[in-house]
Amino acid sequence: MTSADLFLQIQKKKSFLCVGLDTDLSRIPKHLLKEDDPIFAFNKQIIDATKDLCIAYKPNIAFYEAEGIKGWEALQKTLDYIPDNIFTIADAKRGDIGNTTKKYADAFFKHMDFDSITVAPYMGEDSVSPFLEYSGKWSIILALTSNKGSFDFQRLESENTALYKTVIERSSKWGSTDQIMYVVGATRAQDLSDIRKIIPDHFLLVPGVGAQGGSLKEVVKHGMNSQCGLIVNSSRGIIYAGDGEDFATVARSKAKDLQMQMSTYL
Amino acid sequence: MTSADLFLQIQKKKSFLCVGLDTDLSRIPKHLLKEDDPIFAFNKQIIDATKDLCIAYKPNIAFYEAEGIKGWEALQKTLDYIPDNIFTIADAKRGDIGNTTKKYADAFFKHMDFDSITVAPYMGEDSVSPFLEYSGKWSIILALTSNKGSFDFQRLESENTALYKTVIERSSKWGSTDQIMYVVGATRAQDLSDIRKIIPDHFLLVPGVGAQGGSLKEVVKHGMNSQCGLIVNSSRGIIYAGDGEDFATVARSKAKDLQMQMSTYL
Repeated sequence: MTSADLFLQIQKKKSFLCVGLDTDLSRIPKHLLKEDDPIFAFNKQIIDATKDLCIAYKPNIAFYEAEGIKGWEALQKTLDYIPDNIFTIADAKRGDIGNTTKKYADAFFKHMDFDSITVAPYMGEDSVSPFLEYSGKWSIILALTSNKGSFDFQRLESENTALYKTVIERSSKWGSTDQIMYVVGATRAQDLSDIRKIIPDHFLLVPGVGAQGGSLKEVVKHGMNSQCGLIVNSSRGIIYAGDGEDFATVARSKAKDLQMQMSTYL
Repeated sequence: MTSADLFLQIQKKKSFLCVGLDTDLSRIPKHLLKEDDPIFAFNKQIIDATKDLCIAYKPNIAFYEAEGIKGWEALQKTLDYIPDNIFTIADAKRGDIGNTTKKYADAFFKHMDFDSITVAPYMGEDSVSPFLEYSGKWSIILALTSNKGSFDFQRLESENTALYKTVIERSSKWGSTDQIMYVVGATRAQDLSDIRKIIPDHFLLVPGVGAQGGSLKEVVKHGMNSQCGLIVNSSRGIIYAGDGEDFATVARSKAKDLQMQMSTYL
């Protein structure tokens, strides 16, 4: 999927919403636990209820990995169930030396056929480039996150520039705007302005709207570009909004609220 | 396993060798491909041939993940097969926000019972602390790697200190020397001296001796402390030394060479 394809979907659905599938057996409605595959049963209903309102799904790989083989099976079924015109993000934050990253790329792009993966930048270019060798696939590089620990290293100043800006500046030369996006947390939306000065054209994946406290209005004000350039994720705020048998209906209504807000900005 | 337990094993075996299990279906001897589980068949023979010579095994998780469900099954069988007194390292380089890292910790420490996991520091303290909450388990934090991309960010200077040193300084306060180790690449052994000034007592996991070009002598000279403080990994240099039916015997002889060298330094 190219950035033009993505923008087309955004225009068509009047939405730049990504639904995060952080599916946790301890948090899904109790009645699903008697299903053969409760994780997939949950995801299937969430997808059915939200697929006309969002342009991306982001399974958080840790939640599947924590369930072992059953988790990986549920992940594969979920991926197969997501309609082809919806962008898929493996939120895996992988990154290692070349021959190892090649294996992660095989895992997520060949074995599983995700459209994109989130990657950690600490080990530098050769830890990301094997992902970029897959045609039509995306690397979404961690730039600035909104957790407390983001102040430990990401904002360290070097030559009057915060580390996360150096990460963005350098890594944006590793591939094109059809190959690279960035993870940018939403809780300090002002940072988005600074980031847009460095990369006006890249798509940004913005988690942290909703449960993590970010404001959609601020994100749009500081981060949107002429091709939208934003994929805004909400996970817990949508998928765990309800915990009864009607959880999917409740999730739809939360997704609809966000999509309606988004439509006013497009 | 505590650092004292580890040092006891090192003294007993006169070895601080870790064998890296980067098991790749395209590289293992062809005759194993007719086995039900070729990855485990390979690992089993490697473990049988080297378990008296090494004090740790380090499965490289990417190689298992790339084979999907079968890979995870082979990984679990491998882990179960490793004797209890040998330290196990999940080379996974995970790191995410708190509730997600908690899930990775569950995956590798509860579901799979590894002794340790390699972790990426970019997202800061709260991306590592959920690993530290598991008693008796270790986080091995990426500090300085030996790949080309390590120059992109790890060596950036901030307030006259390279980023990797700041990572070590700050993260060493997140837990004890019985909870935290560091990944330090071996190709520039002089860096080890600088690192030992910051953390004289921590164990260091040193990959890159052998296939990646590092010198054991230099690593020992600059990195060893009174409790050894080193776990030196070799993967391809051992496990792919032979490619015939006698591959395990050849692997043993390569491991033996390294163990003999190590014994002279202990």
